[in-house]
Amino acid sequence: MEGLKLVLSGPSGSGKGTIVQELLKSDNFKLSISATTRNKREGEIHGVHYFYKSKTEFEEMIKNDELIEYAHFCDNYYGTPKVFINEVVKEGFDIILEIEVQGALQVKRRYPDAIFIFIMAPTFKELKERLISRNTEVPEVVEKRLKRAREELLLFKEYDYIVINDNLEEAIEQIKYITKSEKLKSKHYKEHIQLMLEN
Amino acid sequence: MEGLKLVLSGPSGSGKGTIVQELLKSDNFKLSISATTRNKREGEIHGVHYFYKSKTEFEEMIKNDELIEYAHFCDNYYGTPKVFINEVVKEGFDIILEIEVQGALQVKRRYPDAIFIFIMAPTFKELKERLISRNTEVPEVVEKRLKRAREELLLFKEYDYIVINDNLEEAIEQIKYITKSEKLKSKHYKEHIQLMLEN
Repeated sequence: MEGLKLVLSGPSGSGKGTIVQELLKSDNFKLSISATTRNKREGEIHGVHYFYKSKTEFEEMIKNDELIEYAHFCDNYYGTPKVFINEVVKEGFDIILEIEVQGALQVKRRYPDAIFIFIMAPTFKELKERLISRNTEVPEVVEKRLKRAREELLLFKEYDYIVINDNLEEAIEQIKYITKSEKLKSKHYKEHIQLMLEN
Repeated sequence: MEGLKLVLSGPSGSGKGTIVQELLKSDNFKLSISATTRNKREGEIHGVHYFYKSKTEFEEMIKNDELIEYAHFCDNYYGTPKVFINEVVKEGFDIILEIEVQGALQVKRRYPDAIFIFIMAPTFKELKERLISRNTEVPEVVEKRLKRAREELLLFKEYDYIVINDNLEEAIEQIKYITKSEKLKSKHYKEHIQLMLEN
């Protein structure tokens, strides 16, 4: 059976990044690697952190419809190449696409069979506290992120599942339940049942 | 949150009955109790095994639209009363409706939000062996049941999930995953998120 495409979104402070890192410790998950035109930073590896592309190469990928979503940020392109995802799911791995809400909506049009999971902190108060306790963001940035989280949360209906990250272990378990359960969907059993009926 | 309505179907020999009995040992599951006009057998209890009704009472229930499905078998009525299901799910329990395929299709029209799970043995060969090893059925009945299983399996697409009961513990786990995962569906989070956005 082909692997699943899991699109994970959630505001800064939702714990999405940590959840993804933990999921990747399981054998069956792989992370989708984005393409970007931004410069490689020290310690980053091509094909691990990003696929690094020139502006011309990236625009060629757009033209050839090789990306399932892309955005232009601070003079650089960021996007998700199709071919890598298709290869990984064909090998049977579940691929995680960590994508913000607008990108996720683009993916939904391309991959209606992908599974959309929105990760959220239990409350906005808790989200704020987590952002503040990071100690890396000035108050204006915290407020901006909260405003954005609110806008994103308004689109929750576009997602299949909501995971409230109150407890990290539970949140991870919930995503694993979703994955296991999605694999039992009847649409995946067409060939299997066909074979049963023939024998 | 309201409990889920789980409709479980599957041919004789699929192990459906054992799975249901095991699920009922968990706190959150309750079994839907059918109404019938057949006579109470020794050891049976009203409100546990069935709700026993007279023919007139049953036909009154049909007339008043109090049943989500019913069938007429060997001169007796069998049906699923709505009110019991509604009460149980309001209390937050997940209710199991063990119903054959035609009845399940009726339920689907009434409760499009119910979750439909089809339980099957890994192969027809295995199904046949299980039916024979019961030692309670004559060969003609075994053949009839296999034919029926085949007809039912052709309708697998009407079900949301397929559980192949190769190993009892795994099959039970799978139904629990489905239940946990279904509760994370975004449609159940409307009020929760409304509250988050207001506070």
